[in-house]
Amino acid sequence: MSETLILHEDPISANCYKIRLTAALLGMQIERRAYDIRKGETRTPEFIANVNANGRIPVLEIGVGAAQRFLPESNAACWYLASGSRLIPSDRFDQADMLRWMFFEQYSHEPNVATLRFWLSYLGKAQLSEDQRGQLAAKRANGEAALRLMDEHLATRDWFVGGGMTLADIALYAYTHVAEAGGFILADTPHVVRWLARVAAEPGYVVIG
Amino acid sequence: MSETLILHEDPISANCYKIRLTAALLGMQIERRAYDIRKGETRTPEFIANVNANGRIPVLEIGVGAAQRFLPESNAACWYLASGSRLIPSDRFDQADMLRWMFFEQYSHEPNVATLRFWLSYLGKAQLSEDQRGQLAAKRANGEAALRLMDEHLATRDWFVGGGMTLADIALYAYTHVAEAGGFILADTPHVVRWLARVAAEPGYVVIG
Repeated sequence: MSETLILHEDPISANCYKIRLTAALLGMQIERRAYDIRKGETRTPEFIANVNANGRIPVLEIGVGAAQRFLPESNAACWYLASGSRLIPSDRFDQADMLRWMFFEQYSHEPNVATLRFWLSYLGKAQLSEDQRGQLAAKRANGEAALRLMDEHLATRDWFVGGGMTLADIALYAYTHVAEAGGFILADTPHVVRWLARVAAEPGYVVIG
Repeated sequence: MSETLILHEDPISANCYKIRLTAALLGMQIERRAYDIRKGETRTPEFIANVNANGRIPVLEIGVGAAQRFLPESNAACWYLASGSRLIPSDRFDQADMLRWMFFEQYSHEPNVATLRFWLSYLGKAQLSEDQRGQLAAKRANGEAALRLMDEHLATRDWFVGGGMTLADIALYAYTHVAEAGGFILADTPHVVRWLARVAAEPGYVVIG
């Protein structure tokens, strides 16, 4: 593929990292453009007008000139990159099942595991609002439940779907492998720990940051 | 398609309705099995062991006997049903862009628009915990932002992606068309209102409930 690919990202965001990891595993070149979400750099009028009306990263910019397009949402950008590759199963059920884990990630995992990492390791507990403090216990319990569900699933299989790595593994790896920065204890989910090592051993793997 | 399809659902849930609507628009038969989420019927040991370890509906049950499989996550179930149909664009970018709106729905729309509907119209404001009350203002603002973003997008197009209805429209229609039960004012987003009518006019359309 020769089209220009630019990732609008914050290097601390594991949602952005998913896209970089997908590209790396597939041997695709991707240019990086950094924003600091803690300084509100994705909420400027320029960003909202030109990159993403939702004011969020990541956004994958594809093509140039008249063919230039912008794709928000981390898992959708991974889907675009991996289209037709070994990272998306062709079997009808497996493909839907892969998306099932990717929707689980955005609904039941990321809002808990990623948010606690951001609040505790990047904002700092002292900076949290009263409403945020009120949500800590629920996010802890829901994040632990998500990790436990993953652990049970991985007790009998090496990968989330089918016999090899798919985008479901990449989506769930992103915030799971840095979950301890949010106060989660990965040793409590040993099948998850072994699966994390399996992902990191894939040829082409790159680290976050 | 002749395989058995059973939807494990709560009729009040618009996440479940998405799947019924997809099946109806495609002329597919689907059996319904009802649970009452307010009575905890999806958190029983039987449900967790046999239907969904995540304790949530909807779950699409596919096939019987040795071929029986369970697919949680509303948008993944819609994907399974619509596989190879007109409701999923074949163009690579459009397909990813459709998923982008479906991930947006689960991340930025449903946790606000659906949750306020459930809290205010089904639980009742008097039943909310202190933590839930603390989240009302943020969910209101975030839900309004999601509806505004949809309205801006629909100002120049009839459907979310490409020239016809796709799963992105079905996913976003589900909780948007009942948003007023969560206190949202649809008249504030006139392009959304016209799009809702467009969806409801599709041949095969069925109502929620």
